[in-house]
Amino acid sequence: MSDCQIFEAGDVVLQSGLTYRKAQLAYKTYGTLNADKSNVIVYPTSYGAQHGDTEWLIAPDRILDPTKYFIIIPNQFGNGLSSSPSNTPPPYDRGRYPQFTMTDQVRIQQRLLREIFGIAKVALVYGFSMGAQQAYHWGALFPDMVERIAPVCGSARTTPHNFVFLEGVKAALTADQAWQDGWFATPPVRGKRAMARVYAGWGLSQAFYREELWRKLGYSSLEDFLIVDWEGGFARDANDLLAMLWTWQQADISANELYGGNLKKALGAIRAQALVMPGETDLYFTVEDNRREVAQMPRAELRPIPSIWGHRAGNPKTNPEDFAFLQKSVRELLAQPALRG
Amino acid sequence: MSDCQIFEAGDVVLQSGLTYRKAQLAYKTYGTLNADKSNVIVYPTSYGAQHGDTEWLIAPDRILDPTKYFIIIPNQFGNGLSSSPSNTPPPYDRGRYPQFTMTDQVRIQQRLLREIFGIAKVALVYGFSMGAQQAYHWGALFPDMVERIAPVCGSARTTPHNFVFLEGVKAALTADQAWQDGWFATPPVRGKRAMARVYAGWGLSQAFYREELWRKLGYSSLEDFLIVDWEGGFARDANDLLAMLWTWQQADISANELYGGNLKKALGAIRAQALVMPGETDLYFTVEDNRREVAQMPRAELRPIPSIWGHRAGNPKTNPEDFAFLQKSVRELLAQPALRG
Repeated sequence: MSDCQIFEAGDVVLQSGLTYRKAQLAYKTYGTLNADKSNVIVYPTSYGAQHGDTEWLIAPDRILDPTKYFIIIPNQFGNGLSSSPSNTPPPYDRGRYPQFTMTDQVRIQQRLLREIFGIAKVALVYGFSMGAQQAYHWGALFPDMVERIAPVCGSARTTPHNFVFLEGVKAALTADQAWQDGWFATPPVRGKRAMARVYAGWGLSQAFYREELWRKLGYSSLEDFLIVDWEGGFARDANDLLAMLWTWQQADISANELYGGNLKKALGAIRAQALVMPGETDLYFTVEDNRREVAQMPRAELRPIPSIWGHRAGNPKTNPEDFAFLQKSVRELLAQPALRG
Repeated sequence: MSDCQIFEAGDVVLQSGLTYRKAQLAYKTYGTLNADKSNVIVYPTSYGAQHGDTEWLIAPDRILDPTKYFIIIPNQFGNGLSSSPSNTPPPYDRGRYPQFTMTDQVRIQQRLLREIFGIAKVALVYGFSMGAQQAYHWGALFPDMVERIAPVCGSARTTPHNFVFLEGVKAALTADQAWQDGWFATPPVRGKRAMARVYAGWGLSQAFYREELWRKLGYSSLEDFLIVDWEGGFARDANDLLAMLWTWQQADISANELYGGNLKKALGAIRAQALVMPGETDLYFTVEDNRREVAQMPRAELRPIPSIWGHRAGNPKTNPEDFAFLQKSVRELLAQPALRG
């Protein structure tokens, strides 16, 4: 944790009614906050990721430019750096971990910006997958603070199908015998491998596998790809992985006292200029779901990524075409004037 | 097994080189074989199904009419009625079960027709899912014998993505601690539930869940649907379920000495009039995959089922629109003259 900072959020009353005491939000910043604090980009993390996994797109020649912007990555709760099952002391340890909704998460992120940096305006919230869901939450929870959002391969509310996909992932992980009394006391080797194989079918498109695009990633066979990329990819603590799944499954910008579960109202309240970029072949965050959201948002454009990389179209570390698409799109979004007043 | 017959196939040399001794193919017939044996329909079984699960569509007012046709359902090997892990004696018991490829399976089915009934022509092979794959195999392995095929939600060869989807199902099932030494010595309760939840996301479309079509099936909530329909749906022996997955993963009409792995050649050899009916929203047997196959087949029409029921569009027991589509399509196919000579 040496390369990031900790925001001591104190005793946080969660939506569940439980209090997480001495909550810690781990974050990292890139670039310099300018004098009028107008160059802020918030870049939340995706499922299983820590800032070190996602900061690759921060560079002058990449998607978020730290020579112009002050970029903050808040690590989501549950990811092992911020408060998570793996670092929570008794009596909220083991199966007692108090879950953070995405609303809980984003409200603490907003406190970080306000209390530590005195930031009142955010030029952009950019996020991929669960990060995109957090971008939507920023827009709905702080409509007067957020000027632009770029949700990439995400949604304002987790759809029922997406929920079911995650049920499968969760069931595979917890089929392991290490799952006892709502907790993994030992690492579930079989469960994590099963989870990875389940995820592999969802994470990329049918066409990706048909065209054997894993070859472009340097794998020697399909099985090599499944073992190294997928089984090797879920490095986090299994209890932490479950906590993040819970947050994902419950994600809903309207599930709070502001909107009372009225998604249309919550979408309509987003004042930010939104550039919503689903992957055309994403199997769980679909274009159609974003299309329905964008229709309810006052200042939103739907711009699907034309790609057969499935969900990974939105995380194009090894994919120059999708990278270029995102880079160009984000630059255009940042060039648009912010809504004032 | 009282309501079906057994074809004693004897000692069968499988593609693997192993011999399955005293192989038994369980089958059931419906209707009457006519004098010139020209009214034969073969209707193979789908994943996990036995004839009792699939015979619902055999009736004068349904899809296959037993007052006109002599319909044979051959139970696939591994389904618990035909030779399967659950009924195979030593030394091929437990983890030693000799797997049947789909080519092995269909060749034994053909022997049943020839040796027991003296049948030389098949008017139609109709099948759903793995049954559709068997229909393709019939067409490619016995091109002079099969007049028509109607593969519904299936493919000539299991695609790489479909293979990966099944890897997830398999990994979820075998994450259970009951999986030891390549065998389930006791029923894997967690594993089967996990398998069911993984499958649930794949078996229906994103739109099915968005529109909550499970309500039409009489379920009171999404969770009720997942528990009763999915967890309750995988009733077969877990070792049998794995054997059928193996057959599915390896399915390939060209993986035999006739075609040497050349799929284009195998597809081109199918002389049957083919009506290929994928579900428009099927997530693992996709329209695009069938489109590529049909382009290589001399007498084939692609006719996607316009449905948001995903893979279940092809098994429309509770879905009048898709049922009507299939019924009409199969009647049209049967009305087409067979290729002669």
